[in-house]
Amino acid sequence: MTPPPVTFAAIEHAAARIAPFTHRTPIFTSATLDAETGAEVFCKAENLQKVGAFKARGATNAVQSLPPERAASGVVTHSSGNHGQALAYAAATRQIPAWIVMPDNANPIKVAAVEAYGGIVVFCRHDEREAAAERVRMETGAALIHPFEDPTVIAGQGTAALELVEAVPDLDVVIAPIGGGGLLSGTALVCRERLPHGEVVGAEPLAVDDAFRSLQTGIRQPGVENPATLADGLLTGIGALPFAILSRLGADVVTVSEEAIVAAAQFHLSRMKLLVEPSAATPLAALRTQSERFRGRRVGLILSGGNTDLAWLPR
Amino acid sequence: MTPPPVTFAAIEHAAARIAPFTHRTPIFTSATLDAETGAEVFCKAENLQKVGAFKARGATNAVQSLPPERAASGVVTHSSGNHGQALAYAAATRQIPAWIVMPDNANPIKVAAVEAYGGIVVFCRHDEREAAAERVRMETGAALIHPFEDPTVIAGQGTAALELVEAVPDLDVVIAPIGGGGLLSGTALVCRERLPHGEVVGAEPLAVDDAFRSLQTGIRQPGVENPATLADGLLTGIGALPFAILSRLGADVVTVSEEAIVAAAQFHLSRMKLLVEPSAATPLAALRTQSERFRGRRVGLILSGGNTDLAWLPR
Repeated sequence: MTPPPVTFAAIEHAAARIAPFTHRTPIFTSATLDAETGAEVFCKAENLQKVGAFKARGATNAVQSLPPERAASGVVTHSSGNHGQALAYAAATRQIPAWIVMPDNANPIKVAAVEAYGGIVVFCRHDEREAAAERVRMETGAALIHPFEDPTVIAGQGTAALELVEAVPDLDVVIAPIGGGGLLSGTALVCRERLPHGEVVGAEPLAVDDAFRSLQTGIRQPGVENPATLADGLLTGIGALPFAILSRLGADVVTVSEEAIVAAAQFHLSRMKLLVEPSAATPLAALRTQSERFRGRRVGLILSGGNTDLAWLPR
Repeated sequence: MTPPPVTFAAIEHAAARIAPFTHRTPIFTSATLDAETGAEVFCKAENLQKVGAFKARGATNAVQSLPPERAASGVVTHSSGNHGQALAYAAATRQIPAWIVMPDNANPIKVAAVEAYGGIVVFCRHDEREAAAERVRMETGAALIHPFEDPTVIAGQGTAALELVEAVPDLDVVIAPIGGGGLLSGTALVCRERLPHGEVVGAEPLAVDDAFRSLQTGIRQPGVENPATLADGLLTGIGALPFAILSRLGADVVTVSEEAIVAAAQFHLSRMKLLVEPSAATPLAALRTQSERFRGRRVGLILSGGNTDLAWLPR
């Protein structure tokens, strides 16, 4: 079944739908960063979003979009990261159950976070997550909310970029991380409408560069097995729906090294006093990696989240 | 020579004077924090201020208040911390020289930060800082800008609380750190005028509790020698001028343990995604230490700065 296409209007509707449950996050600038890069940089601080990540937007839009009779049966997803917490949070705002399938070896802190939002954690073997989620869906009638292969989720994620372009006029470029591609495809839909001459750039860890290769070749490449990156929000390969949107709209991807990711996260922390997770530091890493390309331009960065244990921080 | 009293009008003038050179910092809330404390908590994020601390306010007000003929000779102070950086920054905005006297063993990162703002670092022995600053003053004609025994500096520091009470109506309590007392006395002057029924509370490390004892006894107590606290912005004993203001207006002081300081800084970091220095975590530590007292009330916290190497962070 082909999902309906995601439209800019759907993102505008999502913005209105999620507004009561999410933050309109602030945008930060840094004179030091502008001096270093020669660009004018605007950082959309989704680390300050509900549940600490932009994922609250897509999950909330999906949950709030369910018709009452479907919503009553609750929602289910498989995620060991921010989408699981976001879905638990979103379900709680509608007082419906959320089953979050997580692998046996999931980080106990992330399990506790899902439970703190009222989510029901269902453990399974690492390689059986999709099957386990499907089993919950069959047993409970819950609606499956995929982290990125879902038009309603993508429309929700696009609201971050919508707020950014509404707050900062005349951006030349918007850079967002790419994992599954929900955030970047929502961002691309916004920019196509509101910044017709603007550029949309995905920031991807070199260690998991399938989106880069997919958009270069025009053929969706499989994700990388067990990728070695600190950007644990970007381990997933690019999804079919995001790939279709990004191929059509023409986003570019810049790959970044682990060293560049750590250095960017450290800059956000020590100079801007903002805690971002490694995934969320990839846009600054991309800006610095191709600094000549962005010099003299007005660049928006989407700092996607702030959920991290700081284990990456050099001492 | 008795300095002129500091008035609320001076703080209002300071706000207008420093506006072009400082940030009107954002105010953050946390549903988690409100649930935990039973209070409504509003955090004034001075860690996002220019130079990473509220000290930019007082230093800028002092520098911008100098008549042109005095300003031309520059400014001087002794500080190994945020006031030194702030004065260097403020002098740069007026294109006048700033001599910053620092001890031989000052943290090289802090020396580099002063120099990055254009400050001229003058090294001296740890116990000769005042004499060294006086020598620079005699030789250069520079105006000595004391970090807290200065009405113009205190008026500048008060602008943080002024912005807070303007943005958040009907606060019941404002809690700010106390070291020398410039920030807390400026805060008290604002609250006396704008929150006549509000309470002003200083947050002080237990290891350096001279302000607590001074305000309890009504007699200014000497500072603690070599205090063992992570709150390196609060090592100084309470100054004569802040003590006079705080005695007159009746501020209370809550002392906090090192454990409470670290836990509060960790909360700001992991839950609110804000990097604060240990000194800036003392207000939350005080709120939690006397949680019953603040339950059900609207409490403003001044997060005074964010300049820290994270060495305090438990792994």
